[in-house]
Amino acid sequence: MRTDFADLVAALDIGGTKIAGALVDDRGRLLARAQRPTPAREDGATVMGAVAAVIDELGGAAQWSRVRAVGIGSAGPVDASRGTVSPVNVPGWRDYPLVAEVARRVGGLPVVLVGDGVAMTAAEHWQGAARGRANALCMVVSTGVGGGLVLGGRLHPGPTGNAGHIGHISVDLDGDACPCGARGCVERIASGPNIARRALDAGWLPGPDGDRSAAAVAAAARAGDAVARASFDRAAQALAAGIAATATLVEIEVAVIGGGVAGAGEVLFAPLRERLRDYATLSFAAGVEVLPAELGSDAGLVGAAAAAAQELGLWAGREPGTA
Amino acid sequence: MRTDFADLVAALDIGGTKIAGALVDDRGRLLARAQRPTPAREDGATVMGAVAAVIDELGGAAQWSRVRAVGIGSAGPVDASRGTVSPVNVPGWRDYPLVAEVARRVGGLPVVLVGDGVAMTAAEHWQGAARGRANALCMVVSTGVGGGLVLGGRLHPGPTGNAGHIGHISVDLDGDACPCGARGCVERIASGPNIARRALDAGWLPGPDGDRSAAAVAAAARAGDAVARASFDRAAQALAAGIAATATLVEIEVAVIGGGVAGAGEVLFAPLRERLRDYATLSFAAGVEVLPAELGSDAGLVGAAAAAAQELGLWAGREPGTA
Repeated sequence: MRTDFADLVAALDIGGTKIAGALVDDRGRLLARAQRPTPAREDGATVMGAVAAVIDELGGAAQWSRVRAVGIGSAGPVDASRGTVSPVNVPGWRDYPLVAEVARRVGGLPVVLVGDGVAMTAAEHWQGAARGRANALCMVVSTGVGGGLVLGGRLHPGPTGNAGHIGHISVDLDGDACPCGARGCVERIASGPNIARRALDAGWLPGPDGDRSAAAVAAAARAGDAVARASFDRAAQALAAGIAATATLVEIEVAVIGGGVAGAGEVLFAPLRERLRDYATLSFAAGVEVLPAELGSDAGLVGAAAAAAQELGLWAGREPGTA
Repeated sequence: MRTDFADLVAALDIGGTKIAGALVDDRGRLLARAQRPTPAREDGATVMGAVAAVIDELGGAAQWSRVRAVGIGSAGPVDASRGTVSPVNVPGWRDYPLVAEVARRVGGLPVVLVGDGVAMTAAEHWQGAARGRANALCMVVSTGVGGGLVLGGRLHPGPTGNAGHIGHISVDLDGDACPCGARGCVERIASGPNIARRALDAGWLPGPDGDRSAAAVAAAARAGDAVARASFDRAAQALAAGIAATATLVEIEVAVIGGGVAGAGEVLFAPLRERLRDYATLSFAAGVEVLPAELGSDAGLVGAAAAAAQELGLWAGREPGTA
C-alpha cells in the first residue's frame, strides 16, 4: 500500500553554470529544491562550498529524515569507480573526490555518481520518451552533445559512469579537429555552436536582432533559408551516423533527443529521420526510431535520483526499469 | 567433483563456405566433429540438408546422449528473437527458420542462436584474449569485419543476436558507398579485399606469383613498401575510429582482433595502437588496449557452445563469465 512516507533520494545536478539539488520521491516528484550558481572559475574548495550550500539547504527540509541515498549527475568526465569528477568547464576540479566530499556531509548515506548524460537517460527511461523501452539511446544536443544508454531494460552507466558519450565518437575520421583531441566527432558537427558557425561560414546573415545562435539558424531554416537548412541537414547527418553506429553496435530500438537544438523540432527531426535511413541499414538496426525528449530541465535531478535508486535497489517495484 | 560425464553442448558454426559442428564440453574441448561444404548457391532446403548431415553425424557419436543444448553461430544477419537467419552469402536463406528446423532434428533440445561475431566473442571471452575482462569488443577482420561485445562480465548479444557489428558503423560519413547501403563503414575501409584494392589503386604491384591478397600487401609492407604500408595505415585508422567509438559508447577495456587481416601482425597492430591514441581521447576511453585473438578457426564452435551455455545457465561455476 502506498504511503506518503516513502524513501527519498537527494539528487544533485552539477553543471558548469549551476548546481541544482532536490529531494525526489519514488514517483519522480521533486519535494524540495535548492540551487546555487557554479563558481566555475574558482578553486575546487570554493566549488565544493556551493555544493555544500545546496546540500545544507536540502538538509533543512522537513522531509530530509526520509532520505536514504544521494544521487549525483555531473558534467563529465566523471569516474564513478573512483568517485571523482573532472568537468571540462570546472578547471578547479580535476579528479576531484566529489563522492567522498558529499558523503562526509550527509552522514554516510550511500552516494551514487553518474555522468549528466547517463542521468538524463535514467530520467527519460523512467518517466519520459524511453519509458518501457528495453534498449535506448538518450541524447542531449545543446552546447555539447551528451548521452546515455539503456540496455536490456536497465541503465548502462558503464564502469566509470560515462557510457553513451555519443558526442565524441568520430563519424568523419578525416574531419575537423575536435577540442577533445579527436577529429570529426558528432559534437564537432551537430552541437548548437557548430550549427551556427557553419551557417555563418556559409553566408547566413543573422536578423536585425543580431542573434547568431542555433535557435536563430533554426528560425531561418523554418522560414526557408537554404543555408540555414543545409547546416541543420549536416548536423542531422552526423547525428544519424552516430545513432546508426549505436544501433549497429548495441541494438537500440529508439533514440531520444533533448536539449536546446532538439527544440528546433522538424527542422532537425525531418532530415534526421531521412539520414537515418542512409546509415542504419542492417535489418536489426533499420527500425530505430527517433523521438524528442519529454522531460525538461528537471531531467538531471530526476535521473540522478533514478540512477541511485536503480543501483541501490531502492523503491522496489517502482524503480526505473520495472515500469 | 569433476567427472568425465558432464553435460555437453552441440555447436554449429554456419558460414558461407562451410558448416562445421562439434560436441563441446565444459572446458571448451571439442569431443566430436563433423563438417560439410555450404551449398551456398542452392535453395534453402538443400542448405538445410547440409546442416542436417552435420547434425546426423554428430548424433552418431558415443557422447551424443550427454548433449543438453545446441548452440548455433551463424553468418548474419540473424534474428535470435525469431530464430531466423538471412546470411548475406546464402541467398537461399532469407528469414529462414533455422532454430525451428534444428530443434526438430534434435528431439526438442533447447537451441540458442547468435551471430558469428557474437560467437567468436564468447569464445575469446571464455578461453582467449578477453578472458577475465568485464568489458570487451572482439572482432574478426577478414573478408568482412564482424564483432561482438562483452559488457558487465557477460556476453551482450543484443535482442536479435547481432550486437557488436562494428564492421558496419560509419566512420566516414561522406565516404565510399558500402554494399550494406551506408557510406564509409569500417569494413569498407579495413577488410582484406579493401586493403588490397586500395594498395592496387595506389600503384602497389603484386609480386611474381601474382598474389593480390591483403596477405601479399602485408608482406610488401613488412618489406618496406610505402604504398602497402599506407593501405594498412588507412585500415588501422578506420579500425581505431571504430574501436574508439565503441569505447566511448559502452566503455570497453580491450579490443581483441582476429581473422586473416590480424595475421599481418605489427603491420596492422603498430599503426592501430598509434591511431587509437588519436581517436580514443576521453579519459575513460583512452586506456583501451588492443590484443590479437588467441583462438583459431575453432572459435566459432567453442563460442556457439559458450553462448548457449551462458544463456541457458549450463556448466554452473564453469560457464563463460565466471572464470
